Amino acid sequence: MIVRFERVDAAAEWRDARREAGDTVALVPTMGALHEGHLSLVDTARLSADRVVVSLFVNPAQFGPSEDFDSYPRDPDRDGALAEARGADALFAPTAADMYPEEQTIWVEPGPLGDRLCGRSRPGHFRGVLTVVAKLFAILRPEVAVFGRKDFQQSVLIRRMTAQLGFGVRISTAPTVREPDGLALSSRNSYLSAGGRDTARSLSGALREARAAFAAGERRQDALEAVARRHMERAGADVEYVEVVEPEGLTRPSRAEDRHVMALAARVGTTRLIDNETLGRPSPLDEIRPGPPGSP
Amino acid sequence: MIVRFERVDAAAEWRDARREAGDTVALVPTMGALHEGHLSLVDTARLSADRVVVSLFVNPAQFGPSEDFDSYPRDPDRDGALAEARGADALFAPTAADMYPEEQTIWVEPGPLGDRLCGRSRPGHFRGVLTVVAKLFAILRPEVAVFGRKDFQQSVLIRRMTAQLGFGVRISTAPTVREPDGLALSSRNSYLSAGGRDTARSLSGALREARAAFAAGERRQDALEAVARRHMERAGADVEYVEVVEPEGLTRPSRAEDRHVMALAARVGTTRLIDNETLGRPSPLDEIRPGPPGSP
Repeated sequence: MIVRFERVDAAAEWRDARREAGDTVALVPTMGALHEGHLSLVDTARLSADRVVVSLFVNPAQFGPSEDFDSYPRDPDRDGALAEARGADALFAPTAADMYPEEQTIWVEPGPLGDRLCGRSRPGHFRGVLTVVAKLFAILRPEVAVFGRKDFQQSVLIRRMTAQLGFGVRISTAPTVREPDGLALSSRNSYLSAGGRDTARSLSGALREARAAFAAGERRQDALEAVARRHMERAGADVEYVEVVEPEGLTRPSRAEDRHVMALAARVGTTRLIDNETLGRPSPLDEIRPGPPGSP
Repeated sequence: MIVRFERVDAAAEWRDARREAGDTVALVPTMGALHEGHLSLVDTARLSADRVVVSLFVNPAQFGPSEDFDSYPRDPDRDGALAEARGADALFAPTAADMYPEEQTIWVEPGPLGDRLCGRSRPGHFRGVLTVVAKLFAILRPEVAVFGRKDFQQSVLIRRMTAQLGFGVRISTAPTVREPDGLALSSRNSYLSAGGRDTARSLSGALREARAAFAAGERRQDALEAVARRHMERAGADVEYVEVVEPEGLTRPSRAEDRHVMALAARVGTTRLIDNETLGRPSPLDEIRPGPPGSP
């Protein structure tokens, strides 16, 4: 039976009781609206610690004023049932008043790593993410925390924050889970129309094409980026960025290498989607047969 | 026998062992150069928890480029002996490489509360303080942390950070310890010449005079500030600020009240000193006889 708590005190008490029992704890922080991507994080968490706590919190601080905070899908009962079925031990679903007991004036600021990629179009987003994750770490003091690779810049920032603030939490990043046609699972996919769903496929298609160009010997990052951009634009996506970056400092390399990551963001209609893959290493995208010529 | 550790891992292990033994822990964060003010914090800490850990770390991040990081007094052996004699259980004296294992790019930022009072002349100071205290909290996970009231703005910021980042640490603030003539104890008093020592007395003298004016019915904060400023200037101190503030948000009230705080900073020669007292509540300054007329 999964344990549920809303209050910070109750969460800290659950944590203390686990420690007294000699159990390690893995945290899977989510905004709810759980899908197979999140549930695969629960799987990773179960392999990493004795107990797994899933947090559900649609964090207002990481949404911009014109973003989808109000419309973000919320279904905590369904989320709880899914997490329980997957073997989570506890669900921490605080209210905004629990997590922000007073006006937040002191923030964990991401610095230059937060200004790149998604940070350019989402000012304040990573400040909100890091601050709420720092709070979750301070409250739950997990031995391990598991994040999805789909939120690539986020996972880079959380690793750096954890090292730089001394949290002593092992950060685990689990691979992106994809639909059979390549689309990365995202709670925001539910916003897509049927036509939008076709266009959305072009994000993973762009990564697949760039990876193919890399495999064929292309090492100029602007050429790789152009391949990906063209693929998305042909499908009707409104490209926000496509960048080859080195995966620690998120800087643009002069020449692409195996370990470098292509990260991209695009709007499909009003829905903003992101995706990323390493250029030169095996990827689930290798298993996906591209559509017929001319299709995205 | 006091336990000493430098490494973050060793500190976290000591903490885990205390927890397993069922002991609570109080942390006294210091920059070393311990004096009776610090040692009174150890007394408070011993009353607050089963075990007391004193940290000694001259934190480079809280010094400005033209400040006294290099010349700040350091004597860890003496500090350890003093802390031990006062009943501390452990001494955590990390190196800068232990506390900053990589370039710090992610900071705990103090926001508007950090821009006031000392923040105006020490840009980045409170960012350095909050970040290192957050690290100490993350590493040592104390139940209680004890800070000196002399660093008034710091104690306000640490209370807010602790509440806003969910650390679950009880913050205790211990009264300023003073020399018989009123001078607040500070490691930086060691920089003063004999003549400077006389001038330095004017900081507490200024607070005493402002408190006397308040006791006599003066409620205009600018009049109270002028009394204090004049007193310091007559003694030859170079006043940086004198402000009456309300003690939560550090804003300037329209009219002074009992619970408001007068905070001030001044240079005596090249030495920057600070002091503060509540306006309308009992204070050790009440016990101090002012010098003869015309003296500071």
